[in-house]
Amino acid sequence: MTFGAGVLTTVSCKQPLGKSESGAHMRAYGERSPFEGPVRVIRELTASPGTGSSRTPHAEMYGTITPSALHFERHHSGVPSIDPAAHQLLIHGLVDKPLVFTMTEIKRFPSFSRTYFLECGGNSIGEQSGNTQPDVQRSHGLLSCTEWTGVSLKEVLRGVGVKAEAKWMIAEGADAGRMARSIPMEKVLDDALLVYGQNGEALRPEQGYPLRLLLPGWEGNANVKWVHRLQFADAPAFSAKETAYYTDLGKDGKAQIFTFVMEGRSVITRPSGLQKIVPGFQEITGLAWTGKGRITRVEVSTDGGASWGDAVLQNPVLPLAVARFRFPWTWDGKEAVIQSRCTDETGFLQPTHDELIDARGSNSGYHYNAIKPWRVSADGSVTHV
Amino acid sequence: MTFGAGVLTTVSCKQPLGKSESGAHMRAYGERSPFEGPVRVIRELTASPGTGSSRTPHAEMYGTITPSALHFERHHSGVPSIDPAAHQLLIHGLVDKPLVFTMTEIKRFPSFSRTYFLECGGNSIGEQSGNTQPDVQRSHGLLSCTEWTGVSLKEVLRGVGVKAEAKWMIAEGADAGRMARSIPMEKVLDDALLVYGQNGEALRPEQGYPLRLLLPGWEGNANVKWVHRLQFADAPAFSAKETAYYTDLGKDGKAQIFTFVMEGRSVITRPSGLQKIVPGFQEITGLAWTGKGRITRVEVSTDGGASWGDAVLQNPVLPLAVARFRFPWTWDGKEAVIQSRCTDETGFLQPTHDELIDARGSNSGYHYNAIKPWRVSADGSVTHV
Repeated sequence: MTFGAGVLTTVSCKQPLGKSESGAHMRAYGERSPFEGPVRVIRELTASPGTGSSRTPHAEMYGTITPSALHFERHHSGVPSIDPAAHQLLIHGLVDKPLVFTMTEIKRFPSFSRTYFLECGGNSIGEQSGNTQPDVQRSHGLLSCTEWTGVSLKEVLRGVGVKAEAKWMIAEGADAGRMARSIPMEKVLDDALLVYGQNGEALRPEQGYPLRLLLPGWEGNANVKWVHRLQFADAPAFSAKETAYYTDLGKDGKAQIFTFVMEGRSVITRPSGLQKIVPGFQEITGLAWTGKGRITRVEVSTDGGASWGDAVLQNPVLPLAVARFRFPWTWDGKEAVIQSRCTDETGFLQPTHDELIDARGSNSGYHYNAIKPWRVSADGSVTHV
Repeated sequence: MTFGAGVLTTVSCKQPLGKSESGAHMRAYGERSPFEGPVRVIRELTASPGTGSSRTPHAEMYGTITPSALHFERHHSGVPSIDPAAHQLLIHGLVDKPLVFTMTEIKRFPSFSRTYFLECGGNSIGEQSGNTQPDVQRSHGLLSCTEWTGVSLKEVLRGVGVKAEAKWMIAEGADAGRMARSIPMEKVLDDALLVYGQNGEALRPEQGYPLRLLLPGWEGNANVKWVHRLQFADAPAFSAKETAYYTDLGKDGKAQIFTFVMEGRSVITRPSGLQKIVPGFQEITGLAWTGKGRITRVEVSTDGGASWGDAVLQNPVLPLAVARFRFPWTWDGKEAVIQSRCTDETGFLQPTHDELIDARGSNSGYHYNAIKPWRVSADGSVTHV
């Protein structure tokens, strides 16, 4: 591989300048460099403080782990302040023995740690409707990936004895709005977790401190934060967030409800909207993920989709986690359209925007997962296509 | 698996109390819950501000990723504040073409992300000398594990043309003391990285912002922070930190110098010193790591080393990264001594303290990696043995 002119600068061999006074003291809890600016864009409703979202700034990020401080957020009633010593989880409804667990009791169960992506069902909703966004944070930022630690929900339920007629679990959060979602028993007994740890330390308040329901591969909203109640029932709750929101209105006018799984998608994060590149070698990099298992392939096109080449996937590629892909490119300084597409282990190939609209119609923008092209202009500026 | 009495509490089925006012606003950069206290112990020399260490609080942590804010630190001249726009890396000495790179130029090379542990060569130095510590942060906290992103040093050196007679690379940091270490060419051309990213975002100032030398599996001190100069030479620099410190004085009175590799070791992080447990089910968990590749096995003993059982390793087990192990245990309320030992892919089995002293003598405490027993007293309190 060669690098374009301009990368290297020959100078005389003198020692670089540098400060010689002793540096700063140590801190009990580290912080970012003051040279790194604030990076998450916040959208909060004026009429309802605490209702809105903040997004992961993927254009500025590396690797696969999202630091907890930059994990996306989507809140419906603000962020509650919960004392873990007072927090309790009630499990009731169609069970043999309703129980309440303290955090100490929850933490005594065997623990598991897994790296999982989390994506809001409404990520990129504007991409479908034509309300396009200038950069990848705004268009794809409701996606993050962290190492979660907690306990198997199935294991916790052993002592409760869920009755055979229970088909749904209604999970409710302790936020002011008591945000609730109905989860099919199959998922509850498969890989659902109750998590209290994220990236090595306690969950952040914005991620559900002290306890969150974690449903690997499923839309973010169903992963109920600040979870304090699990009710087993023979029917769903039909809560606001599963009827008025997070349903998919098809092209025939019928709404699909309980569409939880986030399907395969990918996006180039660098170079991406609002960035500017110079001619020569330019690594193209981005993320791919699927709620159906493992990403098996990512292809990149630099000619508007006419031809595709295989990107390199960073190892290890974990199931239900983001995969980082990289693709070497030498930009010749001419206008170009770059894009990525992924394949997952089910054989699913990420569709184009037109293919997606053709299949689903354009009534609903939830679970939007089409290919995302970026235009590189002759001056090097990158914009949304 | 069954859980001891006391885990579950039956109560009447009433909804837990909770606040009903709207929660807090969102923040551009997240923070921990105020219910989570400061967690790193700092030791700083009064006479030399900024000289000392802070340690990762493993007893309170989960999984395998250390958040950057809790990564251990060991500084010799404080933490310099460096503007990345002004930072430069000079490469000179036995090279065809001495060059200076800006951060922008460094970042144009193809990037790599890898999860690696980093351990100070002096971690647990007190365990050997008898200056024992009460908890696992103080005894084993100079160990952390993060996802690093950067560029291959070998790739950067292509344009410089290192001469055949160069046998050592002297890496110097931009801290006030110009901390420097001599690195053999074999490592430089093997897997050495220049890293600028950690856990998804820019390096923290305490970890070498904006650029650090990363030598996978090698003692922390050689991973020069704030790196601003790489000089190629036919002999090592014999700098202070590789002669007066970080050398291993053997039992025959001869010092071994340039002993970089951190050998296999493990430690139980929970339950551990200063913690208190109650009878019944108690998961034993901890970390294992080796600078020689991959951990293949961790065994746990709860009877003072008389018998051992295999712990479960969290998947994936990555080379040169920490492995999280877990071992189910039902504590009967009687005094017990618990400990772990690891095996790595070279077949190395972690030694006992006595075996280690027998082999190495007790003149030097660097690279101490013996088995660490914890005593559980009848009242449940856990102490150093």
